[in-house]
Amino acid sequence: MSYDRAITVFSPDGHLFQVEYAQEAVKKGSTAVGIRGKNIVVLGVEKKSTAKLQDDRTVRKICALDDNVFMAFAGLTADARIVINRARLECQSHRLTVEDPVTVEYITRFISTIKQRYTQSNGRRPFGISSLIMGFDFDGTPHLYQTDPSGTYHAWKANCIGRSAKTVREFLEKKYNAENMESDTEVIKLVIKALLEVLQAGAKNMEVAIMKRDEALKILTPEEVEEHIVAIEKEGAEQPKKKGTI
Amino acid sequence: MSYDRAITVFSPDGHLFQVEYAQEAVKKGSTAVGIRGKNIVVLGVEKKSTAKLQDDRTVRKICALDDNVFMAFAGLTADARIVINRARLECQSHRLTVEDPVTVEYITRFISTIKQRYTQSNGRRPFGISSLIMGFDFDGTPHLYQTDPSGTYHAWKANCIGRSAKTVREFLEKKYNAENMESDTEVIKLVIKALLEVLQAGAKNMEVAIMKRDEALKILTPEEVEEHIVAIEKEGAEQPKKKGTI
Amino acid sequence: MSYDRAITVFSPDGHLFQVEYAQEAVKKGSTAVGIRGKNIVVLGVEKKSTAKLQDDRTVRKICALDDNVFMAFAGLTADARIVINRARLECQSHRLTVEDPVTVEYITRFISTIKQRYTQSNGRRPFGISSLIMGFDFDGTPHLYQTDPSGTYHAWKANCIGRSAKTVREFLEKKYNAENMESDTEVIKLVIKALLEVLQAGAKNMEVAIMKRDEALKILTPEEVEEHIVAIEKEGAEQPKKKGTI
Amino acid sequence: MSYDRAITVFSPDGHLFQVEYAQEAVKKGSTAVGIRGKNIVVLGVEKKSTAKLQDDRTVRKICALDDNVFMAFAGLTADARIVINRARLECQSHRLTVEDPVTVEYITRFISTIKQRYTQSNGRRPFGISSLIMGFDFDGTPHLYQTDPSGTYHAWKANCIGRSAKTVREFLEKKYNAENMESDTEVIKLVIKALLEVLQAGAKNMEVAIMKRDEALKILTPEEVEEHIVAIEKEGAEQPKKKGTI
Amino acid sequence: MSYDRAITVFSPDGHLFQVEYAQEAVKKGSTAVGIRGKNIVVLGVEKKSTAKLQDDRTVRKICALDDNVFMAFAGLTADARIVINRARLECQSHRLTVEDPVTVEYITRFISTIKQRYTQSNGRRPFGISSLIMGFDFDGTPHLYQTDPSGTYHAWKANCIGRSAKTVREFLEKKYNAENMESDTEVIKLVIKALLEVLQAGAKNMEVAIMKRDEALKILTPEEVEEHIVAIEKEGAEQPKKKGTI
Amino acid sequence: MSYDRAITVFSPDGHLFQVEYAQEAVKKGSTAVGIRGKNIVVLGVEKKSTAKLQDDRTVRKICALDDNVFMAFAGLTADARIVINRARLECQSHRLTVEDPVTVEYITRFISTIKQRYTQSNGRRPFGISSLIMGFDFDGTPHLYQTDPSGTYHAWKANCIGRSAKTVREFLEKKYNAENMESDTEVIKLVIKALLEVLQAGAKNMEVAIMKRDEALKILTPEEVEEHIVAIEKEGAEQPKKKGTI
Amino acid sequence: MSYDRAITVFSPDGHLFQVEYAQEAVKKGSTAVGIRGKNIVVLGVEKKSTAKLQDDRTVRKICALDDNVFMAFAGLTADARIVINRARLECQSHRLTVEDPVTVEYITRFISTIKQRYTQSNGRRPFGISSLIMGFDFDGTPHLYQTDPSGTYHAWKANCIGRSAKTVREFLEKKYNAENMESDTEVIKLVIKALLEVLQAGAKNMEVAIMKRDEALKILTPEEVEEHIVAIEKEGAEQPKKKGTI
Repeated sequence: MSYDRAITVFSPDGHLFQVEYAQEAVKKGSTAVGIRGKNIVVLGVEKKSTAKLQDDRTVRKICALDDNVFMAFAGLTADARIVINRARLECQSHRLTVEDPVTVEYITRFISTIKQRYTQSNGRRPFGISSLIMGFDFDGTPHLYQTDPSGTYHAWKANCIGRSAKTVREFLEKKYNAENMESDTEVIKLVIKALLEVLQAGAKNMEVAIMKRDEALKILTPEEVEEHIVAIEKEGAEQPKKKGTI
Repeated sequence: MSYDRAITVFSPDGHLFQVEYAQEAVKKGSTAVGIRGKNIVVLGVEKKSTAKLQDDRTVRKICALDDNVFMAFAGLTADARIVINRARLECQSHRLTVEDPVTVEYITRFISTIKQRYTQSNGRRPFGISSLIMGFDFDGTPHLYQTDPSGTYHAWKANCIGRSAKTVREFLEKKYNAENMESDTEVIKLVIKALLEVLQAGAKNMEVAIMKRDEALKILTPEEVEEHIVAIEKEGAEQPKKKGTI
Repeated sequence: MSYDRAITVFSPDGHLFQVEYAQEAVKKGSTAVGIRGKNIVVLGVEKKSTAKLQDDRTVRKICALDDNVFMAFAGLTADARIVINRARLECQSHRLTVEDPVTVEYITRFISTIKQRYTQSNGRRPFGISSLIMGFDFDGTPHLYQTDPSGTYHAWKANCIGRSAKTVREFLEKKYNAENMESDTEVIKLVIKALLEVLQAGAKNMEVAIMKRDEALKILTPEEVEEHIVAIEKEGAEQPKKKGTI
Repeated sequence: MSYDRAITVFSPDGHLFQVEYAQEAVKKGSTAVGIRGKNIVVLGVEKKSTAKLQDDRTVRKICALDDNVFMAFAGLTADARIVINRARLECQSHRLTVEDPVTVEYITRFISTIKQRYTQSNGRRPFGISSLIMGFDFDGTPHLYQTDPSGTYHAWKANCIGRSAKTVREFLEKKYNAENMESDTEVIKLVIKALLEVLQAGAKNMEVAIMKRDEALKILTPEEVEEHIVAIEKEGAEQPKKKGTI
Repeated sequence: MSYDRAITVFSPDGHLFQVEYAQEAVKKGSTAVGIRGKNIVVLGVEKKSTAKLQDDRTVRKICALDDNVFMAFAGLTADARIVINRARLECQSHRLTVEDPVTVEYITRFISTIKQRYTQSNGRRPFGISSLIMGFDFDGTPHLYQTDPSGTYHAWKANCIGRSAKTVREFLEKKYNAENMESDTEVIKLVIKALLEVLQAGAKNMEVAIMKRDEALKILTPEEVEEHIVAIEKEGAEQPKKKGTI
Repeated sequence: MSYDRAITVFSPDGHLFQVEYAQEAVKKGSTAVGIRGKNIVVLGVEKKSTAKLQDDRTVRKICALDDNVFMAFAGLTADARIVINRARLECQSHRLTVEDPVTVEYITRFISTIKQRYTQSNGRRPFGISSLIMGFDFDGTPHLYQTDPSGTYHAWKANCIGRSAKTVREFLEKKYNAENMESDTEVIKLVIKALLEVLQAGAKNMEVAIMKRDEALKILTPEEVEEHIVAIEKEGAEQPKKKGTI
Repeated sequence: MSYDRAITVFSPDGHLFQVEYAQEAVKKGSTAVGIRGKNIVVLGVEKKSTAKLQDDRTVRKICALDDNVFMAFAGLTADARIVINRARLECQSHRLTVEDPVTVEYITRFISTIKQRYTQSNGRRPFGISSLIMGFDFDGTPHLYQTDPSGTYHAWKANCIGRSAKTVREFLEKKYNAENMESDTEVIKLVIKALLEVLQAGAKNMEVAIMKRDEALKILTPEEVEEHIVAIEKEGAEQPKKKGTI
């Protein structure tokens, strides 16, 4: 009852309550789905049905950290911006000093270290965000990392953060299929399908970003997303006969 | 019961109470309405019926940050002044180092970052203000941003902060109409109409500021505001036949 | 019940309790009345009936900040001295660097910024004072500003702080009359009348300071104050026929 | 009940409890009486009946700050020493930089500023002393100032701090008489009479210090004090006929 | 009940509760087993059955600190990364300044000192990890050290940390046999057997790392681990006749 | 009930509880008696009946600060050492800069200032010691000062600190006699008699140090102490006829 | 009930609870016995029956600080390491600057001063260790000092810290005999006997270190310890006739 006050300390059974409460803030955040294909990494994010007059362009939950890395987050937007800014600065500084872009893991570790520090500093609360960090290393290998408020990170083939993350992850576990990962389109469609599992309406509430090897980050237009949804629905109708491919 | 004391920490369900309490201070603040037109940005602010002997000129809730950006706030006036001062210094410093004025988003991000920092610093309370930040970028595009005490910001076509913000936002959603945004007068009139929704009396209690592309910020005189109100009332009388235009 | 301890934090309904408690200290302070005339600014302060042996000269609640600015305060005397000292230093430093005296608003903003900072600093209580700051800018315009413990300030034609401030303000609202403001004597008399509303005894308990355009601050002698009181009483007797002028 | 803990914060009705508690420590301190004559300033201090073996010389409650200023205090002796040391250093430093001794008000303001700072600093308690500061300015005018734990100060003709201060002040108000202030002996005698009001025994429990214009501080010997007491008692016997002179 | 809050202080019976709570976090961590052979050091770690889509490569609980030292940890992954990073920096810096790699004890002491410091610093929680640190000194002697959150460390022939550590340690005490330690294969097999005591399934949930004298760290492939398991199971079937060798 | 926590703050009736609690630690300390004779200063300290195997030499409660000053303390030994070390450094530094040894009052004031500072610093407890500081100034005058945890000090002819200090002080008041102070032996004997008042056994439990004008500090041997005790006992038997001399 | 939280403050009866709780941690520590002979200093430490697989060499509770000083501790091992490291650094630095090894008291005082500082610092707990520090000064005199968590230290002929310290000390008081101290073997045997008083089993659970004048520290081998135990047991059988020698 009193362990969770003031600073981040251990509870008698070894929990860091402030970190766990921060994770509650993450669970209230927008759902984000990331899948690492063979030649593509795809990130899909739920767009909260914005107030009618909100400017769509600025409600982006997906943002580039460098030419080869981008991320989405779930949780407190203001916290995310701080973390993103520091990560971007680190990417630039890395290019200047090492003359190479960061690897996806390098910048993930950088972000996670900042997060951990806030779980062990006097009188500071942890960051209330989880993130999916994706991209290609300069050797061309695609990566997907996920970090949480404690500062832990792991690599994934496909993962989900935010509201209903557990449901989507179970969906991904059933549908993910190494073969399909060779088809860029199938990867994109799986991301969209996963989001559709937890969203009510169609294209409007979804933002999808893709990055192909040695290509720039591309945010799909609502029309492109819509096209994929139409294709998915058509498949769905035909699915009984195509069962198994996805 | 005890999570909200001392510093800004997470509650068990992931809330930052100090930030939410600061938002209560905002909800008690003067109503401010901003609309981004095609060639104009307009900001209207409720003027609390000042004590009879108060000097009108200094109760300004609208202030310029630079030649191309201005803002209004709702919440604690003293907090706002601190934020505004820092923002103005940043605008000047930006001009000196980059030789270009700030973009509207740049200064919005600057303000939001200060706000976020106060939600994660040891023994500091958050800033008790929300703001509407408007202006034109040097490429001529108009912008309207809204920030809150957590340090989150978004771009809007039209938005409202302060007392009765929800009521006004619903009004704006019904009345906002992309076509009318091409007429500067219609934009001004919509701002005034929105404020009239929540204010009892006329011109005296309202301050309206406009900025046109490549023009300086202009505060409308009470007479100009009054003229618009008269026009609005005339329209209102004729409205049954003009239904739909606004 | 527990929000008001330790540092200045928000209560659930968005109040800063320490600031409000500081305002209670102000309400216990001596009444001060300021009126901005056309060519004169006048400040009148209640003098607590000092212990018989107290040295009148040092119980001044009115003090010059620079040749062109002076102020009165209500609240904690020791806090006021700190604020006044800093303000005086700033006035001198301003003259040295800018080669012009401060404007009245400049020094008001300076004082208010100090006050605000103490409402947002770790482990510091707010300043327990409100002030009336008066004077002439170098362009000859007279000003009257009022600040409170939160760090908010506003310009006024006439205002009052300290004990019974509300009563006096209502009196001022009834009696203030733009025309009379052209007569320096009428301005002085209105200040004295306002103070008489809340004081029991006569001249002894009142200190009145005046500043005319391009003239030095002048503290009226008790005799001069007494003369005005006699005049006021005479007027009072004649008032039934002169009703309306003041 | 809980406002008075930790640091010096405002109570809901605008009190600074730590400061008020410090004043309680002052009220328990030795009585000190100061009177400003025309050509003399006199300070009399109750000497607690020291343990029989205590060395009288070191129980001084009166101490010189500079050639022209001296003070007495009531409250915590250890706190007083800190304040006195700082004041002495300031006096020396003032002489070095300004080449003139401090004025009495200058050093009073210096001491009061230190005191105020401790009422507004994080985690520091206020100083538990009040002081009477006396002396002559270099223009020959005598001064008597009184400061309290809040950092407030005022000039007085005659005043008293410490135990029974109120009783003594009332006595002084009755007996103080501007004419008698021209006679150095009468000033000394009034100080002694005032102390006798609250002390049980005679000379042993009293320390009296005098400073005449352009003369050094002089501590009266117990014999000199005794002589004055004898004179006072004789007067007392004769008083019925001399009524009114004192 | 209240001793365990805020900072790491002693309880009335001499316990440091925060340290003990951190040890609870360790007990929830993955099981890690280390055995020091004559010519080999072997570390085996339970791999939590990762989510199906997690990327195996990044769930490493075994990591090299330098060419001759590696470690495994149980507890908070994010905390471990901080400690590992600092240890790696120290190893590099040691090479640069001393021109020799660290000894295993040197780096163990370094890690333990960091841990201890966090049990005695104002407002910092202890690190929530225990570690097994293994390797060869440059004189060719193999070492195994174990540290805990308090900053204590000891050398072991064989030890275990994390979930079910006590069970595994008892198993090791029964089975450890100095003679077998001369056979590298027997050492590897004993590590695997120890892990099998507390794990349900086979190779998938286990990571085994070995280091031979003057050789680099080698992580066994799942196939190599599987081979050993098969061999162990075959032995198990034959065990009745081979009783005693292990 | 709650005023005594955390830092040293005032209680509602003006007490500094932490300081008073520190004085309780002093009252539990060894009794120390100091008497200033005409040509000698003598310090006697109770020696707690040390564990049989303790090394007598190191249980010294009397220690030299410089050639001409020494002290005894009652209270926390570890605290005393800190204070003594700082005082010794100051004595050395004083000699180096001023080329004269410190006066007894100078070093007493130095010690008291350190003590006071710890009663007014954030998050520090006061020092738990009182001290008797004795010696000769370079003009040959003997001094005895006593300091307490609050940082107050006074000069004494004779005084006592620690356990039963009150009883011993009353004894000293009865027996102290200015004439006898001219005989060094009588001073030593009075110190021993005073200690015998509160100690059960003889020489073993007492340490006596003497300093004569321009001579070094001398710790009496147990034999010397014993001789004095024998003499005292003989006197005691004869006392009925010698009544009044001591 | 509430005095023991947060920082080390005084309780109403003058106790420092955090220090006393730290002493509880010491009482739970391994028993250590030190005896100062005429030409030898001997330290014996209980070895907790280590886990079967623990590496004996690293469970040392005895460690050298310099060629002429060594120590044992009881309490928190991690705390001890910090103190030992600092003491070793000080020994080296002393040699470099003074060109002589430290005396035993010098390094004891150094260690005690560190300990005291942690009982008076804001937000730091005391060190949870007591130590026995032994060795020879460069003039050849042997020393034994004991320090505790408060920072107090004393010299002893023989002493004991840790679990059952009181029992062992009483045993030592009965058996210690100055004559026997001339025989190095008798000193060693008395240390072992003292430890046997509180240990169940034989040589395995004991570590004995000896230092002779101008010789290096020597840890007795388990065999050497065993030999002494055998001799002691033989004596024990013969004791009835040898009564009194030890």
